[in-house]
Amino acid sequence: MADTVCLALDDVFGLSVRVLREHGMSLAHAEAVARVITAGERDECYSHGIYRLLITTHTLSNSSISRDALPVMRDRTPALVGVDAQFAYSPLSFEMGSEVLIEKARKTGIAAMVINNCYHFSALWPEIEVLTAAGLAAIAMNPSHAGVAPAGGTQAVLGTNPIAFGWPRPGKDPYVFDFATSAVARGEIELHNRSGKAVPFGWGIDALGQPTSNANSILNGGAMLAFGGHKGSALSTMIELLAGPLIGDLTSLDSLEYDDGQGASPCHGELVIAMDPLLLGQGQYANDTARAERLFDAFLGQGARLPSQRRFAARKRSLEHGVQVPRALYEEITNLLSGSESTRRAP
Amino acid sequence: MADTVCLALDDVFGLSVRVLREHGMSLAHAEAVARVITAGERDECYSHGIYRLLITTHTLSNSSISRDALPVMRDRTPALVGVDAQFAYSPLSFEMGSEVLIEKARKTGIAAMVINNCYHFSALWPEIEVLTAAGLAAIAMNPSHAGVAPAGGTQAVLGTNPIAFGWPRPGKDPYVFDFATSAVARGEIELHNRSGKAVPFGWGIDALGQPTSNANSILNGGAMLAFGGHKGSALSTMIELLAGPLIGDLTSLDSLEYDDGQGASPCHGELVIAMDPLLLGQGQYANDTARAERLFDAFLGQGARLPSQRRFAARKRSLEHGVQVPRALYEEITNLLSGSESTRRAP
Repeated sequence: MADTVCLALDDVFGLSVRVLREHGMSLAHAEAVARVITAGERDECYSHGIYRLLITTHTLSNSSISRDALPVMRDRTPALVGVDAQFAYSPLSFEMGSEVLIEKARKTGIAAMVINNCYHFSALWPEIEVLTAAGLAAIAMNPSHAGVAPAGGTQAVLGTNPIAFGWPRPGKDPYVFDFATSAVARGEIELHNRSGKAVPFGWGIDALGQPTSNANSILNGGAMLAFGGHKGSALSTMIELLAGPLIGDLTSLDSLEYDDGQGASPCHGELVIAMDPLLLGQGQYANDTARAERLFDAFLGQGARLPSQRRFAARKRSLEHGVQVPRALYEEITNLLSGSESTRRAP
Repeated sequence: MADTVCLALDDVFGLSVRVLREHGMSLAHAEAVARVITAGERDECYSHGIYRLLITTHTLSNSSISRDALPVMRDRTPALVGVDAQFAYSPLSFEMGSEVLIEKARKTGIAAMVINNCYHFSALWPEIEVLTAAGLAAIAMNPSHAGVAPAGGTQAVLGTNPIAFGWPRPGKDPYVFDFATSAVARGEIELHNRSGKAVPFGWGIDALGQPTSNANSILNGGAMLAFGGHKGSALSTMIELLAGPLIGDLTSLDSLEYDDGQGASPCHGELVIAMDPLLLGQGQYANDTARAERLFDAFLGQGARLPSQRRFAARKRSLEHGVQVPRALYEEITNLLSGSESTRRAP
């Protein structure tokens, strides 16, 4: 028996929708979430692929997250659209709001979308790619749960606070980055902890605020560190402020308190900024595009990579051949379903 | 003879204006530049204080920079103001455009100012503080001259590309950071080179792309590195794109070519984004402010510093007691003046 199961992308989508529906999610939400999961699996971002269904169903079972509330969108100014996610997952809110955001950015040059009261879902790059596909440059960010100590500090205050950016490249895959402002993802430290491996210095501190290579000390009573010392810490603070108090929503400290030990996904806000090169430029769009391409050529010409290259290569493979899912994971997920599929595997 | 000269801030401003006027700058430009120089000296950011007059007069004498062109401002959309600096220094353009930017952000929630064709002047924090004083959150960024290799690369493509951010704190000094996305400022490496001191690994690479602790190898044929590895490198790339091709202006590669060995200050564009918490929030401004303050309290309560604390403490001292300028520097600057002051010191 092969230890992987080959699935077409449609199957990944269908399986995801079924699992989410069985856990009480409305069709609109289940499909929006499943689209993001399918994109993660397609691009071989496994932590955001169908593996995510395990976390999602846990959150659905263990928190006050809404399974069906429809986002409430408000056109606030010519450059601002607000979406109240009503304490459901974020993808449906993003899908609804981004259409308006794109229209606005094309009229005013710069526009913002504020999503409030949403449960965190997925990486930010699938959202960024919606905007680059519309020819816009975009930035997105959100706080998470406090787990990262500020530079010079000893206690967790900041979240892993991701920031993502995208630049449209006509006729090519966009330039996209999406990274946590912590030194590494929490999951990376958890992996080291499970296998008893030391982590490099710089990933975190122990309960006394001392640098440590002991993953367990970081996870239990210690704190993670930001990437890049005081500069990364400052950037993470900016994300707290812009995607927290600026938009009337929670910081990572607030979000952790709000969770109150449930262990659910962070509940917070998100800020998305979109900018139109056709309006912000000086009317020489072809020249501007060429200047950006020259920059990318200079990267590639010296053997440096563009941030999402690996993801785009995986995408190409997956669109052609489908995806390979580890059999154990596949079975864990089908076990989330009632009926034939899961009873076939029941102990 | 004391080896420092004590100057009142008015004297710093007056001296700066006289030096700039004698080097052909119009009164409007000289005063705008002198305001920024005075702020730098006041806050004990010495590299951006009156020391800067030495660099500025060099640029005025050795480049095609305009000494008197008036900025041309254009109200482009409800959320966008453009200022063409007409190849003069940036401070006057910022002063003119920021008034419109503030008005726009207060109406639309988010607004951008694009400055084109300007010669780089000073740090970004004086600009950010104009916006926080108006109750706005703000981000500013610009490219510079190519001198930084991308992560995984070996050749200088990126600039030191600063990014600055500010958050208004009613009744208090704002939260402000302003940092280069290179591991350190170029001047820091130059200082090590002059004193023959090794630099830490991570600051730069040699001509073969190898990590080096030799400052001279970095400066001559090598390249600086970004802070924070591939994440800092990605952030620096974002700055190239947003404050370059997005706004129809030069990347750091272009800017270095444009300089053509003159050794003048970089000529480029600048992007400033302003956001109004009163419009982006959910109508609970006092709560939002309290949430931000709680974050700062959590920093300070564990002994971590806020980014500009040292600067604000220096400002308080300088406003009360004036500033202490090293006598040698003071004389070097007065020597830039014709007439009594400089002839007194002529060899």
